[in-house]
Amino acid sequence: MRVLGVDPGLTRCGLGVVDGRPGRASMVAVGVVRTPATADPGERLVYLEQELESWLTRFEPDVVAIERVFADVNVASVMTTAHATAIALLAAAKRGIPVHFHTPTEVKAAVTGTGRAEKAQIGSMVMRILALDAAPRPADAADALALAICHLWRGQAQGRLAALAAGARS
Amino acid sequence: MRVLGVDPGLTRCGLGVVDGRPGRASMVAVGVVRTPATADPGERLVYLEQELESWLTRFEPDVVAIERVFADVNVASVMTTAHATAIALLAAAKRGIPVHFHTPTEVKAAVTGTGRAEKAQIGSMVMRILALDAAPRPADAADALALAICHLWRGQAQGRLAALAAGARS
Repeated sequence: MRVLGVDPGLTRCGLGVVDGRPGRASMVAVGVVRTPATADPGERLVYLEQELESWLTRFEPDVVAIERVFADVNVASVMTTAHATAIALLAAAKRGIPVHFHTPTEVKAAVTGTGRAEKAQIGSMVMRILALDAAPRPADAADALALAICHLWRGQAQGRLAALAAGARS
Repeated sequence: MRVLGVDPGLTRCGLGVVDGRPGRASMVAVGVVRTPATADPGERLVYLEQELESWLTRFEPDVVAIERVFADVNVASVMTTAHATAIALLAAAKRGIPVHFHTPTEVKAAVTGTGRAEKAQIGSMVMRILALDAAPRPADAADALALAICHLWRGQAQGRLAALAAGARS
């Protein structure tokens, strides 16, 4: 399965494509879409949509995994993050690609074993899991890869549980 | 000038088109786009975008006026409202139509004279200003028309101030 992880944002939107199968995850692509905070808000969304569509066309992910953002921090940044999330949702839905949301805590727990991990720890584990020479930078890029890994591994855990349940019934 | 007012939302998105010139405002169209809360979040955005594009094509507004939402109420509804706002911003930007935001307080003050007006008062004043037989329903439809009126009238006030300033200088 191929997952496109999206760490939504307008100033920086992290994108990471990861291929995975049980016990394995490998990076296909990573990047960050940037739009200047001084640009027209609508133009920023148009540019982000174009970039997202280009990634969807090029990498053809089976699933898009987006970080679920809560409105408990800076109000203005939550709004632009929500706008970026909407553009990712729209672009995926137009192609019939399913979208799943994962919270920052779920992502941290999936790649580090603890939901309270710090940024550096996430980058470090993403580097190890994907066998990269260095931690991806900026943090948004590492977070997008972590999201994709989180989705692959949570899916696998759920698959194993389903298989166990099926085995118990047979 | 023709303004499309957008009261953003996913369950109900109010749309109102108003033509205005100094001392006059007339309704061109009003409606509400509804998407079921049980539908796929991405599909809801795709449908809303299609409807907004259809309104932009049909009515060719010079400006889109959107209600500026703050993240101080229900978290989940703020997020879906922000998603709907992003879709309206995107649709307008793709056509090069300028977008302006007005706060609920600015809209209330523009049509009722007080920023603390209740819903019923807004509907009542929208009905009088646009010479309608009844207040538009649901409230989202009246709010969208009020937004468009607010934009027209604030622009006029700013235009008068600019003219006064120009006169004082000449």
